[in-house]
Amino acid sequence: MVPPSILSPVTRHAPLAAAILGGLRDVEEIFAKQLRSDLPAVNELAQHVERYRGKMLRPTLLMLSGIASVGAGDGAPIKKAHRICAAVGEMIHMATLVHDDVLDEAETRRRGRTVNSLRGNETAVMLGDWLISNSFHLCSLVGDTAVNVLFGETTNTLCEGELLQLSRREDPTLDEVTYMEIVRRKTAALVATCCSLGARLSGASDEVQTALGLYGERTGCAFQIQDDVLDLVGEEAVVGKTLGRDLEKGKTTLPVILLLRGASPWERSEVLQIIHRRDGAALLERLRRSGCLDEAKATAQSLVESAKSALDVVPEGPARELLRELADEAVRRQA
Amino acid sequence: MVPPSILSPVTRHAPLAAAILGGLRDVEEIFAKQLRSDLPAVNELAQHVERYRGKMLRPTLLMLSGIASVGAGDGAPIKKAHRICAAVGEMIHMATLVHDDVLDEAETRRRGRTVNSLRGNETAVMLGDWLISNSFHLCSLVGDTAVNVLFGETTNTLCEGELLQLSRREDPTLDEVTYMEIVRRKTAALVATCCSLGARLSGASDEVQTALGLYGERTGCAFQIQDDVLDLVGEEAVVGKTLGRDLEKGKTTLPVILLLRGASPWERSEVLQIIHRRDGAALLERLRRSGCLDEAKATAQSLVESAKSALDVVPEGPARELLRELADEAVRRQA
Repeated sequence: MVPPSILSPVTRHAPLAAAILGGLRDVEEIFAKQLRSDLPAVNELAQHVERYRGKMLRPTLLMLSGIASVGAGDGAPIKKAHRICAAVGEMIHMATLVHDDVLDEAETRRRGRTVNSLRGNETAVMLGDWLISNSFHLCSLVGDTAVNVLFGETTNTLCEGELLQLSRREDPTLDEVTYMEIVRRKTAALVATCCSLGARLSGASDEVQTALGLYGERTGCAFQIQDDVLDLVGEEAVVGKTLGRDLEKGKTTLPVILLLRGASPWERSEVLQIIHRRDGAALLERLRRSGCLDEAKATAQSLVESAKSALDVVPEGPARELLRELADEAVRRQA
Repeated sequence: MVPPSILSPVTRHAPLAAAILGGLRDVEEIFAKQLRSDLPAVNELAQHVERYRGKMLRPTLLMLSGIASVGAGDGAPIKKAHRICAAVGEMIHMATLVHDDVLDEAETRRRGRTVNSLRGNETAVMLGDWLISNSFHLCSLVGDTAVNVLFGETTNTLCEGELLQLSRREDPTLDEVTYMEIVRRKTAALVATCCSLGARLSGASDEVQTALGLYGERTGCAFQIQDDVLDLVGEEAVVGKTLGRDLEKGKTTLPVILLLRGASPWERSEVLQIIHRRDGAALLERLRRSGCLDEAKATAQSLVESAKSALDVVPEGPARELLRELADEAVRRQA
């Protein structure tokens, strides 16, 4: 069964949405088939992880970019290679979720228990490795090493973003430029690759591939800023995962960077005390009062506008329209 | 600088050994170049990991198999693809070391501090991911998706071996068949791939590729049994890494399986108590007295003999001779 899709809030282009949902069903099949093992112990874990599947943002964007890039209005340009790469993108994302939960000591993900909380960190580390390995194996089945090179570069970048973030934990001097570099690498790079690769597999021009890559990068950055805002202000019952982890794990995110930047030396020292005490309620109160949450949301919104502008060189049509709506949804979402 | 190589105890075929050592220098360069990052935080970690480089068993076997498979006496059959794949094999191995140390909560590796003990589990998990990602990226540069498929299958198998082992922790009913299945997957599969791929890249016949794959699988199994024996009887100062981890982490290895199998119900209950108490000294005393350590070593030795027999279809020559000596060394080594 197709999970609640990111398409659900967007119903205006029903025939196109139906084509994407059909594609997502194929992606799910490819995904499940790739993860079938001859070992029952492994299959059990694979089934648990299936439940992590959420909005399928990356496969959706890959296929939609494949359609939009050549100005189609339906699923005609979507080939087997699109579906395989869409499954690869989702599998890489899922591997990062499993390892992120180890890093964050999170207990809940998509309303279920995390692998680390159920089976221990060791199993979660190894399961994540198995998912990464399977994503590369699956990717090789496209039969074009350029695709392997592209995904390999992307996951290198993704890991480097995480390593950069880890190296700056408990560091209140982290500035906005470095924060954006972390976000671009750890989140936006994979989204950008999905979008540009979708176009490339459809045979779109270099200009359109680049534009869709930019669209994906900016949308991905906006998506991560919204994630970081939700980690501060969201409700666990709505978001469906453990929140407040950034403060707990010493990650300085955009709202806090803005708060510290605008603070007087005296206020700054108070905020640092609050962070040191891991006092989420006091931090949230300061953030609300200072307007820094709104400022962070405005940054995300301006990235969304810039993502939509990048689409100007993409042929007009319902797929381009849907991409624009999905960019808006990245910051509108509450979960 | 080339690290102490597995070739050092084998000096009889000096010209061939020199060719391999030259190849290993190239492998080191490819390895270091692949891991160069534009982020200082990442480079620092990469340099720490460089120190983990040990015997370079997998690159050595890959190149030596490439030479032996076509009956050459020097490095003539070794192409760029061999060197890239040799670096890939070593990088995958290094990624598993970094994640193994997280799994084992080990503090020492190759006489240095482990990444997890120095920088925390989070950084070690992400660094391992970055190494896996880089190994796949590097592998794609060979430009032959069949190589990617092969390495992808191998790492799938490797992770499944680890997951199988994790699912049977604290389980004294683990039998020899399952133990060998774990060892075959988690250790021998990568060694086998290195050997068969070396032959394949040299254009050897299917029969010779298969024979070298078998040689690698059996040698790899013997190597792991020796590792498990050393974890029980070795001295940390000689082996250079934290020992006694198998008992500590609830891993039932071959000597203990044999001990439990040969025990009376009364003795069995005593041994289970010893394991439960994590009493390494008492366990070792029982193992020595029962002759199970020798029995485990005999199993490893018989795998080595069978590995050497697999080489009968490989053209005669110094490279084949060196492969035979390296198989012996897998169980003779004390570190």
